[in-house]
Amino acid sequence: MRLQELADRLGATLIGDGERTVVAVRPLDAAGPDDLSFLHNPKYAAQARASRAGAILARDAETLPGRVVLVCAEPYLALAKAIGLLHPAEAAAPGVHPTAVVADDAVIGAGASIGPCAVVGPGCRIGGRSVIGAGCVLGRRVEVGEGCLLHPRVVVEDGCRVGSRCILHAGVVIGSDGYGFATVAGVHHKVPQVGIVVIEDDVELGANVCVDRATLGETRIGRGTKVDNLVQIAHNVQVGEGCLLVAQVGISGSTTIGHHTVFAGQSGAAGHLHIGDRVVVGAKSAVYKDVPDGEFVTGIPARPHREWLKANAGLQRLDQLRERLGRLEEAVRRLEAPEEGGDQ
Amino acid sequence: MRLQELADRLGATLIGDGERTVVAVRPLDAAGPDDLSFLHNPKYAAQARASRAGAILARDAETLPGRVVLVCAEPYLALAKAIGLLHPAEAAAPGVHPTAVVADDAVIGAGASIGPCAVVGPGCRIGGRSVIGAGCVLGRRVEVGEGCLLHPRVVVEDGCRVGSRCILHAGVVIGSDGYGFATVAGVHHKVPQVGIVVIEDDVELGANVCVDRATLGETRIGRGTKVDNLVQIAHNVQVGEGCLLVAQVGISGSTTIGHHTVFAGQSGAAGHLHIGDRVVVGAKSAVYKDVPDGEFVTGIPARPHREWLKANAGLQRLDQLRERLGRLEEAVRRLEAPEEGGDQ
Amino acid sequence: MRLQELADRLGATLIGDGERTVVAVRPLDAAGPDDLSFLHNPKYAAQARASRAGAILARDAETLPGRVVLVCAEPYLALAKAIGLLHPAEAAAPGVHPTAVVADDAVIGAGASIGPCAVVGPGCRIGGRSVIGAGCVLGRRVEVGEGCLLHPRVVVEDGCRVGSRCILHAGVVIGSDGYGFATVAGVHHKVPQVGIVVIEDDVELGANVCVDRATLGETRIGRGTKVDNLVQIAHNVQVGEGCLLVAQVGISGSTTIGHHTVFAGQSGAAGHLHIGDRVVVGAKSAVYKDVPDGEFVTGIPARPHREWLKANAGLQRLDQLRERLGRLEEAVRRLEAPEEGGDQ
Repeated sequence: MRLQELADRLGATLIGDGERTVVAVRPLDAAGPDDLSFLHNPKYAAQARASRAGAILARDAETLPGRVVLVCAEPYLALAKAIGLLHPAEAAAPGVHPTAVVADDAVIGAGASIGPCAVVGPGCRIGGRSVIGAGCVLGRRVEVGEGCLLHPRVVVEDGCRVGSRCILHAGVVIGSDGYGFATVAGVHHKVPQVGIVVIEDDVELGANVCVDRATLGETRIGRGTKVDNLVQIAHNVQVGEGCLLVAQVGISGSTTIGHHTVFAGQSGAAGHLHIGDRVVVGAKSAVYKDVPDGEFVTGIPARPHREWLKANAGLQRLDQLRERLGRLEEAVRRLEAPEEGGDQ
Repeated sequence: MRLQELADRLGATLIGDGERTVVAVRPLDAAGPDDLSFLHNPKYAAQARASRAGAILARDAETLPGRVVLVCAEPYLALAKAIGLLHPAEAAAPGVHPTAVVADDAVIGAGASIGPCAVVGPGCRIGGRSVIGAGCVLGRRVEVGEGCLLHPRVVVEDGCRVGSRCILHAGVVIGSDGYGFATVAGVHHKVPQVGIVVIEDDVELGANVCVDRATLGETRIGRGTKVDNLVQIAHNVQVGEGCLLVAQVGISGSTTIGHHTVFAGQSGAAGHLHIGDRVVVGAKSAVYKDVPDGEFVTGIPARPHREWLKANAGLQRLDQLRERLGRLEEAVRRLEAPEEGGDQ
Repeated sequence: MRLQELADRLGATLIGDGERTVVAVRPLDAAGPDDLSFLHNPKYAAQARASRAGAILARDAETLPGRVVLVCAEPYLALAKAIGLLHPAEAAAPGVHPTAVVADDAVIGAGASIGPCAVVGPGCRIGGRSVIGAGCVLGRRVEVGEGCLLHPRVVVEDGCRVGSRCILHAGVVIGSDGYGFATVAGVHHKVPQVGIVVIEDDVELGANVCVDRATLGETRIGRGTKVDNLVQIAHNVQVGEGCLLVAQVGISGSTTIGHHTVFAGQSGAAGHLHIGDRVVVGAKSAVYKDVPDGEFVTGIPARPHREWLKANAGLQRLDQLRERLGRLEEAVRRLEAPEEGGDQ
């Protein structure tokens, strides 16, 4: 692609020869004269200056004198677009593969693709241009919106609903039973889980993610929320819009999470909590009580990060405390026995 | 269903008009006049009194004056039964789907259902009324008891055995190799894993749970134990009866767990340990040594919870300790230099 | 098998009657006269002496007087070989199962086996004697080397490469998208992930493991590395050779790990780090900064283990500190008011 055309499509200002072409996006250290690269973290500025890349996406051209630069206010977003332009995704062939098993009354939208050995149950509705990958299993009355991409081997159980433009990676399970038992005399009697899961528009779920159906009502993941691999979302959880749940996070039953909240990797929340908007939960942390909007919490149990820092610093300096105490004991001993001290 | 009939089937005492009917179970805040709701946590009593529910399951009627109440000793168990009555599960069609691949010598019990694209290997035995969901793969000589429900895409590898009335959720893997290597000169030589997994009766395994086969002998999960999503059970582990392993728990190789023990979410145990009966391991905790019966342990490493509480409280109060120490240092300085102090 | 033949094949020295035969390998407590057992941990020496096993693999015969012993320098490695000899794996039938869906231009090596309902996409190359289990899905242009074993329901997405002699357990997902978003005004725009995953030779990946494709370039797992169940490897991660990643570990994006490094269960590393060779990361630990070669780190955040031990010990002894402080305060009070003290 000609650089001028690329700049136009990215909304970038081109510094350099617009007739030059690039064919791929590559990292700074791997890029050659036919590649576009990018600088969005200033600490890589020297690497960018030394790069052999034919052109570089960057916030400004000043740090890259003499280089061909596509200047843009949001270089990382421009990078996302550039990758999409130079490395377009391969489309799945529309239509139902002959080995797929699709119920007679399922409604398949125009241009949708149902892959080999996929199973689409009775009463399902698949929106236009959605891709149901090989080996996926959709139960009864499942709804999938338009333009979704279900990678191979996704399971969506009975009655669950997926919005439009969602991406579900391989091994995702939506609508497994919530973990609910009435324990009487040591026997765990199953509480039937008859609610559903609703995945709103523009959600992405990573590989092998599990989202349990509600006992009654809905487990819900809000629009634009992105969930990384191996995350567990329990029954009746409500996740707001634009949240980020990083890999191996676990959210316990009935907890509600506001909008634009981040759970870093391997963190978790206990059940029946309310976690506000724009909260950040640090990696490995465990939330045991409600968290107000905008708070940054870390630790087990999670508390405001500044408290955690203080406690942790104190723990590292216990030695100093112990030394000060020893010196003091010595001083007091001398004070208590002045005649002895005088003898020396 | 008429309320009197419902009360009879639940063993509840009806306070109110038995001719009224309910059609669904709904939470207190969502229930309408045609719905049954429930009060099993006293903190929701006010919400229950304000609910529009046609009838309420509760331990007693006194907190709900003027309301139609189904009084029962175990309202949560009654709720489980009521959901089953008012929201009956949809049965899978019995028989072998034409796209399933079933070995000639596999024995399929009466009324069992083998779903689309499921694979049942040579020598398998599937008990009566069991459901093998779409895309499940059972290896060679796998045994599944009666009345089991294997959701889509469960894998049970060669020689493993599943009892009766078990529920295996989508993505479960039973009988993957244990993680065993003989490391010599930095090379990890695989120790073949030739044991099996035995899942006893009435066990439930959550979505994407992994249970490794034993090196030799058996990995075993005891009767009535319930395992939540994304749990890892390593080779040769023995889990007792009636245990609860909450989401994302990991149990390392050869550890034995007694009966009615609970591992809360994201906790784990090291290998070759013995964890007793009725133990509770707190969320996120890591058990590194044996735990006696009835103990409640938390933390990394896990210790009795009261010790953890004390250590954690101490950590939070380090500031006070530091302040007391500072005041004391000041006092001792004054005592050591009385003439100076006298001058002031 | 005759003991003399077994000894010869294991490179062991036989102490006892070489004409005796054994038919199986069993643990010390379960073995009978027709079984081979093993002693590689000295703490089980008494159990070995009491065992009914027909023969025992051990490092020396002195601790087992009067017993039939196969003496070998590496008894655990010999055990691995003995299990392989006495419990040989059952071979999968070579050829393509009639229900498999294999693209016309896929190249399937001699003796390879493609199981029921497996899907092999266009441009794939499967090496000789490799087994692609039931329900596996290989995307476009996937390469699998020779002698691999893909258990049922493995997914390898477009363009990813698996070396020779790899074992991928059920539910593994290779090549899911990395978790990368350009967030502008609260909206998370997907950064297309167009790199690949390279799994080198002799790697084993446990059940339901996820390995994300690189944004650009490669995510790579080095030769001979063994990965346990439910591990998450993010985009652009580079894992060296001969590493051990135990169950439920998570490695964040762009982190590089050297050779022969161990991550114990449920530990994790943040992104963009460099973790050296022969590092050991303790269970449940969280690595937030680079770790030099050979270090043993534990805790959240992870630090050298000796520091962690010291901090933890200090925390356990806070009570003593508090008591010493109290006694000192009392002493200083007496010193500050001597006349009062004199009155008593």
